[in-house]
Amino acid sequence: MVIVLKDGASDADVASITSMVTENGWRVNVSRGEEKTIVGVIGIPPQEKATFKDHLLALGLVQDVVYVSSPYKLVSRHFKPEPTVVQVGPVRTGGGAPFVVMAGPCAVESKAQLLETAHAVKEAGAAVLRGGAYKPRTSPYSFQGLREEGLQLLAEARTQTGLPVITEVTETKYLPLVSQYADILQIGTRNMASFDLLKDSAATGRPVFLKRGMAATIEEFMLSAEYLMAAGNANVILCERGIRTFETSTRNTLDLSAIPVVKEISHLPIYADPSHGTGKASLVRPMALAALVAGADGLQIEVHPHPEKALSDGQQSLNFKRFGELMREIADLCAYLGRPLARVTTNAVATAADGRG
Amino acid sequence: MVIVLKDGASDADVASITSMVTENGWRVNVSRGEEKTIVGVIGIPPQEKATFKDHLLALGLVQDVVYVSSPYKLVSRHFKPEPTVVQVGPVRTGGGAPFVVMAGPCAVESKAQLLETAHAVKEAGAAVLRGGAYKPRTSPYSFQGLREEGLQLLAEARTQTGLPVITEVTETKYLPLVSQYADILQIGTRNMASFDLLKDSAATGRPVFLKRGMAATIEEFMLSAEYLMAAGNANVILCERGIRTFETSTRNTLDLSAIPVVKEISHLPIYADPSHGTGKASLVRPMALAALVAGADGLQIEVHPHPEKALSDGQQSLNFKRFGELMREIADLCAYLGRPLARVTTNAVATAADGRG
Amino acid sequence: MVIVLKDGASDADVASITSMVTENGWRVNVSRGEEKTIVGVIGIPPQEKATFKDHLLALGLVQDVVYVSSPYKLVSRHFKPEPTVVQVGPVRTGGGAPFVVMAGPCAVESKAQLLETAHAVKEAGAAVLRGGAYKPRTSPYSFQGLREEGLQLLAEARTQTGLPVITEVTETKYLPLVSQYADILQIGTRNMASFDLLKDSAATGRPVFLKRGMAATIEEFMLSAEYLMAAGNANVILCERGIRTFETSTRNTLDLSAIPVVKEISHLPIYADPSHGTGKASLVRPMALAALVAGADGLQIEVHPHPEKALSDGQQSLNFKRFGELMREIADLCAYLGRPLARVTTNAVATAADGRG
Amino acid sequence: MVIVLKDGASDADVASITSMVTENGWRVNVSRGEEKTIVGVIGIPPQEKATFKDHLLALGLVQDVVYVSSPYKLVSRHFKPEPTVVQVGPVRTGGGAPFVVMAGPCAVESKAQLLETAHAVKEAGAAVLRGGAYKPRTSPYSFQGLREEGLQLLAEARTQTGLPVITEVTETKYLPLVSQYADILQIGTRNMASFDLLKDSAATGRPVFLKRGMAATIEEFMLSAEYLMAAGNANVILCERGIRTFETSTRNTLDLSAIPVVKEISHLPIYADPSHGTGKASLVRPMALAALVAGADGLQIEVHPHPEKALSDGQQSLNFKRFGELMREIADLCAYLGRPLARVTTNAVATAADGRG
Repeated sequence: MVIVLKDGASDADVASITSMVTENGWRVNVSRGEEKTIVGVIGIPPQEKATFKDHLLALGLVQDVVYVSSPYKLVSRHFKPEPTVVQVGPVRTGGGAPFVVMAGPCAVESKAQLLETAHAVKEAGAAVLRGGAYKPRTSPYSFQGLREEGLQLLAEARTQTGLPVITEVTETKYLPLVSQYADILQIGTRNMASFDLLKDSAATGRPVFLKRGMAATIEEFMLSAEYLMAAGNANVILCERGIRTFETSTRNTLDLSAIPVVKEISHLPIYADPSHGTGKASLVRPMALAALVAGADGLQIEVHPHPEKALSDGQQSLNFKRFGELMREIADLCAYLGRPLARVTTNAVATAADGRG
Repeated sequence: MVIVLKDGASDADVASITSMVTENGWRVNVSRGEEKTIVGVIGIPPQEKATFKDHLLALGLVQDVVYVSSPYKLVSRHFKPEPTVVQVGPVRTGGGAPFVVMAGPCAVESKAQLLETAHAVKEAGAAVLRGGAYKPRTSPYSFQGLREEGLQLLAEARTQTGLPVITEVTETKYLPLVSQYADILQIGTRNMASFDLLKDSAATGRPVFLKRGMAATIEEFMLSAEYLMAAGNANVILCERGIRTFETSTRNTLDLSAIPVVKEISHLPIYADPSHGTGKASLVRPMALAALVAGADGLQIEVHPHPEKALSDGQQSLNFKRFGELMREIADLCAYLGRPLARVTTNAVATAADGRG
Repeated sequence: MVIVLKDGASDADVASITSMVTENGWRVNVSRGEEKTIVGVIGIPPQEKATFKDHLLALGLVQDVVYVSSPYKLVSRHFKPEPTVVQVGPVRTGGGAPFVVMAGPCAVESKAQLLETAHAVKEAGAAVLRGGAYKPRTSPYSFQGLREEGLQLLAEARTQTGLPVITEVTETKYLPLVSQYADILQIGTRNMASFDLLKDSAATGRPVFLKRGMAATIEEFMLSAEYLMAAGNANVILCERGIRTFETSTRNTLDLSAIPVVKEISHLPIYADPSHGTGKASLVRPMALAALVAGADGLQIEVHPHPEKALSDGQQSLNFKRFGELMREIADLCAYLGRPLARVTTNAVATAADGRG
Repeated sequence: MVIVLKDGASDADVASITSMVTENGWRVNVSRGEEKTIVGVIGIPPQEKATFKDHLLALGLVQDVVYVSSPYKLVSRHFKPEPTVVQVGPVRTGGGAPFVVMAGPCAVESKAQLLETAHAVKEAGAAVLRGGAYKPRTSPYSFQGLREEGLQLLAEARTQTGLPVITEVTETKYLPLVSQYADILQIGTRNMASFDLLKDSAATGRPVFLKRGMAATIEEFMLSAEYLMAAGNANVILCERGIRTFETSTRNTLDLSAIPVVKEISHLPIYADPSHGTGKASLVRPMALAALVAGADGLQIEVHPHPEKALSDGQQSLNFKRFGELMREIADLCAYLGRPLARVTTNAVATAADGRG
């Protein structure tokens, strides 16, 4: 059972409700967001739900009491039928907002590599710059990322291009630093179930881009998003990036059906990542276009000036020429579908990070 | 090593080559197709391949000797770079041929159900009528199909609409009967590795529609197609229909990346089946459109006059209205992509079965 | 709903019951086994079950009416609580019967290879000889088996050793021949869902050894066994042989938990095949012992005189020395567990095939 | 390439070697363990390896230069053929050391629950007490653990019973607190690829118990262990706990073949967790015994005084009676196999935590 308090609920209001719950011997979970305060009730027997709801509504403090059959609540369309639109600097995504392409290198490798790429992807029509500074690598002997230096380069690329930047945070201890630089915090596939990282990332107030765990069911994916929203952050973007199956001709199996499934059950924007989803540059184009017509709100695509020299994921990265060609196809298909492509047209954009300067 | 004999090779030619192989102590596998005779050599040591190839070419009987690194040969683009176009009655599919939608009920249930559906799907733009007469059902207590009566109804629907018909054959013992009625023989997902069924189906000369096994890698899928071609039948259509994964919110995980992967490695046409691939009617539309832009040559879609009353797979079948709406979207998207939609415009079509009459 | 008729039910009895069912507009499925006649009722609404059961019992023809929540009936422990014991020539398996090891080559390759192996595995303590005559191979260019010659060699090995033989049947068209030679018909993993093959194999009266499909859930596995039993054959042995997962360091993932799961839900004997389950000879020993303590009724193990020269599956086959060592460990562990190891001690054994002579 | 320095290498020695590497333009990764200093060289072209190895050996500072084909080095049997034995308070595990059972509740719920369980599992023969204080839960509304209070209760249980305690750490920020209380740090399945957590956990010097990711290949599992060892901690225990597959009748598929596979490739101890591996109390017994004979060094089993009331994982927990019966079977089977069962016989045990007091 989820109790949604009326706007402007005071601490005393919350306390009076939580004590009603705990007096019955049930467990309580309070999430105070900027706008909403949610009180989750755990352990209430089904037969007592209706009566307790009546008691709650009688208090006059409660906006709604929801008991949906899904284990997730806040991310559900039952809870919020209208689609969520997330604002990131000059870019809006989700709902009827334009189609967004996030592009850039898997890893930030050098100033030249990043800046060259940033300008190229902006030129081609990307609206957000991606780049990894903290890289979770399967082997301890692989390149682990430029870390803070990488973040600084991302900030410089933002200044030069006006593109908001998205970068992955792999650990709560990097949150203070990463959230200082990033316009969007990316939670990678390996961390979809790192629940403290979810909670602490949400608490920064930054929009969070949550990638589906490579072995996560869609229900588990929704529950990880629920962690973000239950921590008070409504600016959540989801991303399907391929799941692990027995097939070996692709790196992962990009589950495009997850896009319409998520659209049915949730109000949150959902993207696809055809680069990790396939692991092969030649497959990025068809799967990017397929994701678009399947209803994705955006894409995340890896681009590198020289994929054959990339320190990570070169085999799935597009060079500038192929990315440019793909973007033209995407723009045309967007036009056909009546959904404009998001573009950042000015460098003098007021991003979140600039506001901190 | 695969030896391709010149056209019109005699039995004596084949015998002289096979004896050359067996004299060396190697194993031989002869496939005499209508057009091509292929002699597979098994067990030849790598270091002897070049010399033996020279001996073969010196005979004057051999068109080509192929040794490609992939375990499949005849289906490979290395073996035949140009795309295969399969002719089925008035319909051509593959290569630059128009986009084909095969539609109809999962199972033929009654005369009224089938004929009503056949007219409706033709009206909406389908070019081939599908319908199961022999149904492989997980439970022995489920409806097993109308069998020969179902085949007769399919033939009647063909006569009335001019649509070629595709129906599944589940066993070699049904081949004489099924191939008498069907324009295309469908090998279902459960039988992708029923190798005798593959060989015997190929031997009928009918085009074969081969669905990917639900746990088959793409390489295994190609090898099953290789069985068909090695048995002398070049009219093979492939179909991705979803693979088995841990995800439970869809019936299968439709692996759309298989479409561009197959396009890269093979010359054969490849379809998608968004009905079985998702198991949910609401997901058929987005995945059908996604398959089209991902490069599929056609689709197979389940349509039923009253999905809620269907004897099998009702939850994934479209009713006429939804199918009609989807076909309009498909036709528009085909037009946008510059690929026409295949249509059967006359009832007086000369299908294979008519030729037998 | 499953109606179990009293023993000795006449055709007229069956007809009177089926007409009761069809008059209500429900579908009927009659399975006349040697001992039991089972009438399955399909489509009966839940609310009418109790009343209809009363009507049936009032007839005096019915032994029992079962409606269990599982989709399988005859294989269920609900239907038959006591474990099934299958008799194969001199060997009994299942329930409290001794632990059975079936061993032999993946494929019968030659007279010398088979006879040498047959004597060796008998010597080491195997109770059944396995060997493939019809081989389902992923590639059409791989060795496809010696076919009838292989069957004849198996019969000769049986005559020399007294061991019953098990061999795979891949197609209904081979059933007349294979069932003439085999003491046990093996349905391989690729054919677990070849439902006609299941029905026709059951109809031969031979015991059937059903291997789990590599992508089959346990429920689907039970339903395939249900096909066998619904066709009147109660002599069914199940075998877990590894399922397909993302792991690549083993050929399959041997799901040993399937053994206790099946023991809970079914009365049928269940074996494990650690050879296919792992694909590596070095892993056969630990997984064989693990399967034994997990409760398996027997094992199927691949043995070859010279695994490095085997025409198929050499990398997972044990040579005679390793098999002999493993059998000593198995025998000791059986003794510890208080379950004797099944042994065939005489050559003058009356096997089913001898009876036909 | 992995360079193993001689014991007692000075900082200057390390610097001279690393500069040799970087002068060539290659990347370097230094791991200074207590005993060994390892310099990993990344990016060296294959053709230069032999020459560079000669240069290194000529320095007189280097004990060995290893280039194994596997991506993991320190965990490999190639690198260290003899099995690793990990000491935890009075308990030794791995190699020829006695078989260890870790048991206790999934989550520490209360003082009474934990202490009652601790005494019961010790009585029954467990050598280590498990209990979760920080619980990673799929839903934000589920019980999240007693956190520090849970750690204090574990310490009290250790004082009363003498059993070392193992508890999960889910985040680097909890490491200072958790490592103060825990004798063994557990890295859960969701965090197997949380590489910072691995590095920081290793740096505490505590033994680390690493559970296989539910979708991790064995190679990835080894690479996560490599992170621990590369961070200087050789006290690593591995644990197979079930992988995610399509099968739904068990919570996970316990991949017991991982035990002999890991034994072949690594010197580290490996355990099995039949509780999470199956998700059903009735399956714990057969899979625990199977893991033992498959070669596991130990087990982790969930025990709860009242499984039906547990706040998490009750359906897979054993009550005291069933756990006692299982331990008698395990002890007997250990005796049969000639491997004693580890037991903690005194309460006055000098655990690591006591040493800090």
